[in-house]
Amino acid sequence: MIHQIKEGYVKVEPKHGITTIEFFHPQGNALPAAILADLAQEIHSAGLDTETKVIVLRSAGEGAFCAGASFNEIKAVTTPEEGRVFFSGFANVINAMRKCPKLIIARIHGKCVGGGVGLAAAADYAIALEGADVKLSELSIGFGPFVVGPAIEKRIGLAAFSQLAIDAAMWRPAEWARRKGLYAELHSNLENMDESIQRLANELMHANPEAMAEMKKILWRDADDWDTLLPERAAISGRLVVSSYAKAALEKIKSKLH
Amino acid sequence: MIHQIKEGYVKVEPKHGITTIEFFHPQGNALPAAILADLAQEIHSAGLDTETKVIVLRSAGEGAFCAGASFNEIKAVTTPEEGRVFFSGFANVINAMRKCPKLIIARIHGKCVGGGVGLAAAADYAIALEGADVKLSELSIGFGPFVVGPAIEKRIGLAAFSQLAIDAAMWRPAEWARRKGLYAELHSNLENMDESIQRLANELMHANPEAMAEMKKILWRDADDWDTLLPERAAISGRLVVSSYAKAALEKIKSKLH
Amino acid sequence: MIHQIKEGYVKVEPKHGITTIEFFHPQGNALPAAILADLAQEIHSAGLDTETKVIVLRSAGEGAFCAGASFNEIKAVTTPEEGRVFFSGFANVINAMRKCPKLIIARIHGKCVGGGVGLAAAADYAIALEGADVKLSELSIGFGPFVVGPAIEKRIGLAAFSQLAIDAAMWRPAEWARRKGLYAELHSNLENMDESIQRLANELMHANPEAMAEMKKILWRDADDWDTLLPERAAISGRLVVSSYAKAALEKIKSKLH
Repeated sequence: MIHQIKEGYVKVEPKHGITTIEFFHPQGNALPAAILADLAQEIHSAGLDTETKVIVLRSAGEGAFCAGASFNEIKAVTTPEEGRVFFSGFANVINAMRKCPKLIIARIHGKCVGGGVGLAAAADYAIALEGADVKLSELSIGFGPFVVGPAIEKRIGLAAFSQLAIDAAMWRPAEWARRKGLYAELHSNLENMDESIQRLANELMHANPEAMAEMKKILWRDADDWDTLLPERAAISGRLVVSSYAKAALEKIKSKLH
Repeated sequence: MIHQIKEGYVKVEPKHGITTIEFFHPQGNALPAAILADLAQEIHSAGLDTETKVIVLRSAGEGAFCAGASFNEIKAVTTPEEGRVFFSGFANVINAMRKCPKLIIARIHGKCVGGGVGLAAAADYAIALEGADVKLSELSIGFGPFVVGPAIEKRIGLAAFSQLAIDAAMWRPAEWARRKGLYAELHSNLENMDESIQRLANELMHANPEAMAEMKKILWRDADDWDTLLPERAAISGRLVVSSYAKAALEKIKSKLH
Repeated sequence: MIHQIKEGYVKVEPKHGITTIEFFHPQGNALPAAILADLAQEIHSAGLDTETKVIVLRSAGEGAFCAGASFNEIKAVTTPEEGRVFFSGFANVINAMRKCPKLIIARIHGKCVGGGVGLAAAADYAIALEGADVKLSELSIGFGPFVVGPAIEKRIGLAAFSQLAIDAAMWRPAEWARRKGLYAELHSNLENMDESIQRLANELMHANPEAMAEMKKILWRDADDWDTLLPERAAISGRLVVSSYAKAALEKIKSKLH
């Protein structure tokens, strides 16, 4: 099943109990609202699907895993309310991952920025490839990693999250992300990464689904308030993204591209 | 003082304010209900004993530190209620360690599996020997690390706990456990490990008992609900351990041994 | 602006939106009550000052960053109430750092002991120099790291905090502190450290102040109760510091110096 969305897509492939959800966008797998909505929906559906034992979340190509929020859509935001609605898309994906009763393995084949780091953090087990460096650039473009913050801080702790959030211009190497726990594994080539994902997915495919559902609950037990927390955070980002600081920073990025 | 329990024992040796509690079981220091009950009782008693300034928790021999729950007893469980009662044994030991007003040093001389990892995590300071690798194999035998989960996650964080819990077939080296904080120290030989334990125990033996009791409280301040949480977790494990998944997995392990 | 305080001082230098707060005391930048009170006040003021975009907290000289509580003042404490009042000085500085709506970069050019570790932990981003080793010696002098504990545990996690708090005689190298997240960066020479601080401060100087204020809130969102928690902790330390254990330990330190 594949949903063509503007230039990108979300593709769902169930196979022997392992359901792979793949997203694609030509701008470094950036996430526009339509892809976010579809991702949230597909994760929710795979969670309900009794055939699905485990979910693999991946993106297409060999470039970035995910460049974060779509710049074009961020730039098009003109009111705090539009901003809130846009960032709610990330809140919905992360909440879908959190509430999904199936364990989610993320396949991080390349760089993660902003919301992309959030996806890696919200997965239950992320397996990455060398070169999958991370950056939270939000502050440098006038807002902050408010929506994805709870998932990232929960996964890597306050200290590492602070480093990413405050030093917004700095790429942290994939090895840093592994040491901080964002990645459970880091592989030096694509074959090893995919082999390891396959091995783990195969094991979970045969594991007790009820045990995995209970495990999912305990891994997320302190996040019960995220149905309200993450939308609140979306409102903060939405308000800040229309500030003069954000508009000036976004304009500068645009002008660099032309 | 030594309590012979079936094939194993729990031995308590008070000496100059340092009370050593040692357990033994011929199957890799696995823990049947009787040893768990005795451990909880002895930790509780040492906590009340005014002569005891600090506790050293260890196991016997040079093999595994602790193979986790007794396989024989797990296999003998036929109802969720029996399962709940069995796993409550771990809940009681961890709660005894948590509420004990004395600091507990764990001497981890060898491998830890399942509940054994829980003991290391629930100690206030674990000193280990190279080779003391760790594994949470629960999911691979049909249930999950529900009872020991809170102690492990509290000690090493969500990311490292998730790695252990989800990739249940994988041994993590002792060095990994040190980096994640499960072990405060890791030594390359037995003499150095024991010397370091002795040094620290000697210092604590002379420290202010009231200061240590207050320190114990602050180190565990966010675990006030574990008197209800851990028994709830025991009920989850108890229910899952009689599932067809668990029975099939346990049968397979048994058949491998014969 | 410089406040001469007994032998030490607190100096505030605003420059292009970067406000540097520097403290000095001839005994390894130890902290007497008067410096603590002034630090809390200046951090609070810089937080309110609209010209200040980011704060750099540093101490003077090339020796220790901060030797912790002033030994002379601790020794002069004769009642639990006097002790409580003294330790409240640390509670007030940490709460001022926490509630300050500006991000605080700490410049850790040398060793940190006790309360000094607390300052590094309560900063939002600490940049350190090799040799900036850390120790929580409180337990070895009869009390414990009760007031600074919440900030340190929040930053580096339970495991690393336990190691410091329990093994109170042990220096942990700066590299350990970096790995545990106490330091976001560790530099091998002074020039690199100061260059990195300048680079980050410059970036934050130009960042959206409202975004940074919101970020500050989310980084500290789970510390709302510290206005009551830290003073309670000061009362514990105050009570223990007049115990016979503390008096004997402090006497021994004094006699070593003469």
